[in-house]
Amino acid sequence: MTRAVVLFSGGLDSTTTLYLAKQQGYKCCALIFDYGQRHIRELRSAVAVAKRAHVPYQSIKIKLPWKGSSLLDKSKKLPVKLSRNIPSTYVPARNTIFLSFALSYAEAIGAKAIFIGANAVDFSGYPDCRPAFYRAFQQVIRRGTKAKQIKVLTPLIKMSKAEIVKLGIKLGVPHAITWSCYKGGAKPCGVCDSCRLREKGFREGNN
Amino acid sequence: MTRAVVLFSGGLDSTTTLYLAKQQGYKCCALIFDYGQRHIRELRSAVAVAKRAHVPYQSIKIKLPWKGSSLLDKSKKLPVKLSRNIPSTYVPARNTIFLSFALSYAEAIGAKAIFIGANAVDFSGYPDCRPAFYRAFQQVIRRGTKAKQIKVLTPLIKMSKAEIVKLGIKLGVPHAITWSCYKGGAKPCGVCDSCRLREKGFREGNN
Repeated sequence: MTRAVVLFSGGLDSTTTLYLAKQQGYKCCALIFDYGQRHIRELRSAVAVAKRAHVPYQSIKIKLPWKGSSLLDKSKKLPVKLSRNIPSTYVPARNTIFLSFALSYAEAIGAKAIFIGANAVDFSGYPDCRPAFYRAFQQVIRRGTKAKQIKVLTPLIKMSKAEIVKLGIKLGVPHAITWSCYKGGAKPCGVCDSCRLREKGFREGNN
Repeated sequence: MTRAVVLFSGGLDSTTTLYLAKQQGYKCCALIFDYGQRHIRELRSAVAVAKRAHVPYQSIKIKLPWKGSSLLDKSKKLPVKLSRNIPSTYVPARNTIFLSFALSYAEAIGAKAIFIGANAVDFSGYPDCRPAFYRAFQQVIRRGTKAKQIKVLTPLIKMSKAEIVKLGIKLGVPHAITWSCYKGGAKPCGVCDSCRLREKGFREGNN
């Protein structure tokens, strides 16, 4: 079986990506980041979903000493309106950091693919969620590693949230235990960016 | 003054790079990584040199849970012969990880440049020390960040160790307090890859 590293948060997108990679026959290893998110609810969900999927996981703890993102800084407000601009939750170079660890991991264990559930549709203003970014990172792999043949795969990048929900249902994704909310309450807040996108996806995807 | 992030280990190459960036008029911030090197001697030198250069520094602690490099794993032998092959000290995707943190830092503080003392000459078998790798990473910046204009600068990439030593003398680099040895003894071991390269540089550079 071909090994793959799956960047994993336990949210809707990365869980669907994990189940898709499994269905495609990859032997998956989930890579979970503790990078100072506002809450640890996300991390608990990630571990729970990885266990449910019977996939081994590796956790990486990162502390970014610089501030600026509302995703990492509790004193900042989370956005409550969907917009096509870069939102305040943007963490500079976050996906570049995640991919570089995934690349190191993939090279160390001989994996041939890195899966990431990035999504460029549905109000995503993040520059590191767009196809051109992943094509550029593919060149970094080609030029900067021993294992030049590792592929970065972004199967959800052009799908709407509704399509992701539908695909998840087909793949048996345990939607109930995934977690998308940026806040860490007992229940999702329902108003943050991520909650709204998820809600929209389920509303449209279940039709 | 334009800000720059300098990837910094306190060794010969990164110290020369720091002094060069300062001479070019950049307001430098040194970024030091504690990534599980075999010894902490390197980290102490990095801090000492940054202080001597009157440059603020930021430390990042990373734990790579995967093994494989003799630079991180004390049970493995360090290479004692210079070779053009990829040496056992190679850490998968190390410079990609370093650059991605530097990119995040640069974006957060509004820096316009990232300096790295990579060097492709003199028996360097590391794929992530070659110009093509840095050109590829430049595209990642262009495509994946808000601050698309940040430049990756590698001023030593085509210089021999002897030329780096000569340049350092001209710039006032405090060679005596830099540290290149992969081992962490009281004195440099004199036989590891890095010691041999450094020695060769001083032998030829002082002529």
